Order: sequence, then C-alpha cells, then structure tokens
Amino acid sequence: MENLILDGRVVAQNVKDRLKDRVANLVNKGVTPCLATILVGDDPSSETYVRMKGNACEKLGIKSLRIHLPKETTTEELLTKIKELNEDETVHGILLQHPVPSHINERKAFEAIDIRKDVDGVTSFGYGQTAFGFGKYPSCTPAAIMEIMDYYNIPIEGKHAVVIGRSPILGKPVSALLLNKNATVTTCHSKTSNLAEVVKLGDIVVAAVGKPNFIQGDWIKKGAVVLDAGYNKGNIGDVDYEACLENASAITPVPGGVGPVTISMLLKHTVDAAEETLNIK
Amino acid sequence: MENLILDGRVVAQNVKDRLKDRVANLVNKGVTPCLATILVGDDPSSETYVRMKGNACEKLGIKSLRIHLPKETTTEELLTKIKELNEDETVHGILLQHPVPSHINERKAFEAIDIRKDVDGVTSFGYGQTAFGFGKYPSCTPAAIMEIMDYYNIPIEGKHAVVIGRSPILGKPVSALLLNKNATVTTCHSKTSNLAEVVKLGDIVVAAVGKPNFIQGDWIKKGAVVLDAGYNKGNIGDVDYEACLENASAITPVPGGVGPVTISMLLKHTVDAAEETLNIK
Repeated sequence: MENLILDGRVVAQNVKDRLKDRVANLVNKGVTPCLATILVGDDPSSETYVRMKGNACEKLGIKSLRIHLPKETTTEELLTKIKELNEDETVHGILLQHPVPSHINERKAFEAIDIRKDVDGVTSFGYGQTAFGFGKYPSCTPAAIMEIMDYYNIPIEGKHAVVIGRSPILGKPVSALLLNKNATVTTCHSKTSNLAEVVKLGDIVVAAVGKPNFIQGDWIKKGAVVLDAGYNKGNIGDVDYEACLENASAITPVPGGVGPVTISMLLKHTVDAAEETLNIK
Repeated sequence: MENLILDGRVVAQNVKDRLKDRVANLVNKGVTPCLATILVGDDPSSETYVRMKGNACEKLGIKSLRIHLPKETTTEELLTKIKELNEDETVHGILLQHPVPSHINERKAFEAIDIRKDVDGVTSFGYGQTAFGFGKYPSCTPAAIMEIMDYYNIPIEGKHAVVIGRSPILGKPVSALLLNKNATVTTCHSKTSNLAEVVKLGDIVVAAVGKPNFIQGDWIKKGAVVLDAGYNKGNIGDVDYEACLENASAITPVPGGVGPVTISMLLKHTVDAAEETLNIK
C-alpha cells in the first residue's frame, strides 16, 4: 500500500512563509509582534522547548521576551508576572511553559492569561470559544493537526475521527476542531474499555496520549489517516509508526510531523494577536 | 425485557426538595435568590417556557424578575439590558430565552452575560469551564441528564456514550460532562454518515437533535440507556419511544423525562449563584 507521509517540516515552512509579509507589514506600521515566554524552574526539556520557540520567533522577526523565574516562584508571584504582561501593550502573546513546578497552581496561572494574548490556547475561555467555532487561538498542537490535514487536503467532513487523549490543550480541543469540521468524533482515554476496537472505527486517528509507541498497528483501520501528537523521550511518538504504516493511508512521523507545525502555529497566533491590536487602535 | 422508566418528575422533585432549606437559609441571611428572565418578542412557546420557569422559581421562594422586551428590540438595546442586570446585585441569575428574533445577534447577547450569573450555561466561557471540569453552571438540559443518571445510579465510567447533536447548549456540553465522568464519548450530527451504526455503539445514547421520533428502535443496542433531550411540538421527543423500549434497559419518557429536571437545574444554579455572592461578601 502506498502511504502518504505527512511531512510537518514542509507544512511548518509553508505557514512561516505566509507570515513573513505580515510581520514586515506590522513592523512598517510600528508594531513588532512580541511573544513573552515564561519558564519557571530549570527543567532541561522545558528550557529546550522555550529556547526553540524563542529562536523560531526571532528568525521570523517576532520579538521574543524570555522570562525565566526561579523554581521557588509562588503562584501569587507568577500571577503578578502574568498580570504585568497582560497590561504590557508591547506584548501580544503570552506562553507559560508547561509543566510548572508542582507547588504552583498551574490552572490558575493559565486562566490568568488575558484571552487576547492567549496565543498558546490554554485558557478555558479560549477553549470554549474554539469549541463554539469562533475562537481565535486554539491550542497550538490541535491547530497544527488541522493545518497538516488542510495542507494535504485530507477530507474530514462525515469521517469518523477517533482522538485518544482528553487533555485540556490537546485531546479536548482537537476533538472540538474536528467536530467543527463536521467529523463524527469519538474521544477516548485511560478509562476507555476495548480501546483497540474503538480506534479501529477511526477514518482519522489522533494519538494524544503521551505514551511511547502506544497505538498498535492492528488497531488501525485499513486506509485510516494517523496523526501522532505524541512527543516522548528519545523522539518517540505515541504511535508505533512502523506497525501503523501497514494500514494507514497517511501518517505523521515523529520527529518531523506535528511538532514543527505546532511551533509555527504559535508564531502565527502571535502575529494574529499583533494584528488584532492594530484593529483596536 | 424489564425496562426502567427514568421518571424526571421524581428527580425534579428531589432536586427541589433539597433546595428548600438552602433558599430559607439565604432568605434568613437577607438574600432572596433572584432569577431574571428576558423574553424578546411574542413567540407563544417562548412565553410559555418563561412563564413556567418564573412560576417554578416563585413556588420555591426564588424571586422571578420577568423582563419582556418588544420584538423590535435591537442587539444594542438587549446588551444594555443584560449589562444592567449584570450590575444589579439583587439579581443572581440571568436567563435569556432562546430563540430571540432573527435580527438580534443572539450569540453576542449570550456572551454578554456575566459568568457569575450565567445559570443557564450559555456562554462560551462557562462551557469551557464545564469542559475543563470546574464549571459551576453547565447548561441546564445537560445538567439534568447527568442528574437523572446520578439519581438512578446509572454507571457512566468506561461506557460508550453516543450523543446525537452538537449544539452549544446541549450536544456539546452533555458530551463534555459525560467525558468528564469517564465515558468514551462519540458526538454525532447531521453530517454523520452511517448514523444508525454509530448509535448502535452506545451503552448510553443521548438524543439532542430536535427532530420528532428521529431515533429508531433498531438503532439502539440491547441494554442501552436512552436519554431523550428532545422536545418537539405536541410533546414528542427525539426518540421513537415505543420502538426504543424494545432494546433499551432504561429510558426517559417525553413528557416527564428530561424536561422537568431541566427547570429544577435552573433553580439549583440560581440558588448556587446566590450562595456564591454570600461567600464573596
């Protein structure tokens, strides 16, 4: 069977290419798009992610304001910092790198981000707007999955999409976005009985479970499209790629699949948010 | 096969009985819970619904503030009225009766309701909080469906729930609530192909489609629990009740199923909201 490998690098480049003129146009009008990233503590992979995001911004002419708080930071201190960034007119997007140290109330911190700057799509308000079909910034990995399907012209309407995972920034919003594109959507999770059978229903399968090589080849219906949002240690996805290749008609690899597009969606949302401020002014 | 008829009247009465002491307690503390209802125009069934809700409030000692605006009301005028009610400290809940005349931007009006007073669960913000598991006032029909299942001890965890419908106040929130109770959830709609087959997967089937007698008996898996949120002209549900009785292990009738519980959830949310103001003061 001929498989289509859904190359995220190509999609990410396409997104970034379309942003260049928009960034130049904003700068011409005196507005340099700016993404503030907040890193709390010294988790090495978080540091890497934040650095990658900041570098991607700068490459495109987006200002990267990098805030690094000590791991002892309290919830209140973090909230104060977020409030300050909410009020800073030169900042258009705010990203709080997940996870924060366990003593911090992460949900409370996420919820404190002004919806106009929630370019990473972490607030419940932003999620609600996305689910109702008028959200501006869905969370970036779900947005990336939709962008990949759009780029490769993968039909969604009337298809049965099975999402494995129900986190607030991944399983839930990608389910909502697929539903809004007229898929029939099944959301599965750790309490799902007969998971293999349920996944086998999927014309589209989104793995968002956070367990390496979890999705087995014989769970995949012949001809299904498989999107792997997993990113586990050692560059391993949630999908047993080689095994799933057997049945999938199209599949995202890890690395080089959903990951790079996720970052490009963050850039896009930051530019969107910067443009919004011009409409307001 | 022995069927369990899920009697909504019993559940509604149970909810109301539990509210009585809470209302008395609030009144003792000088706070009379108050629900403001807004009716725009003269649609006779809307008038009936609003009257029923107001009367149900008063029976329980909840103040019913009934606002009736002419059908020519503009979106701006409606927003002004909502803003006024948002700021009125004696009002704890606001219900805008759906549908409003077509020249009004209904979504914009819904979104204007302060989340602390959104006892009918219509805002995207409230929906997002509900989906993330910390919403205070899910919309009332989904809340009623959950209350019925709770009252009759219907197991949800690990079950496959199939929801037919995806409206912002019904299909979407009931899908979210079932997911948060650890069901595997499939959301279907008008673009779902092979609907009969998909419904047949359901251990729990929620009909929220707004078409009389739409759900056929042979779509229902043997032993499934069927919840009919439909309420069509002539007291007819979305489910072909007699035919579905054959396979269902438990089923809500229409009338006397989800409907009466919906109103009692509205009362409960209004009392909840009134209690919240005491916590703040």
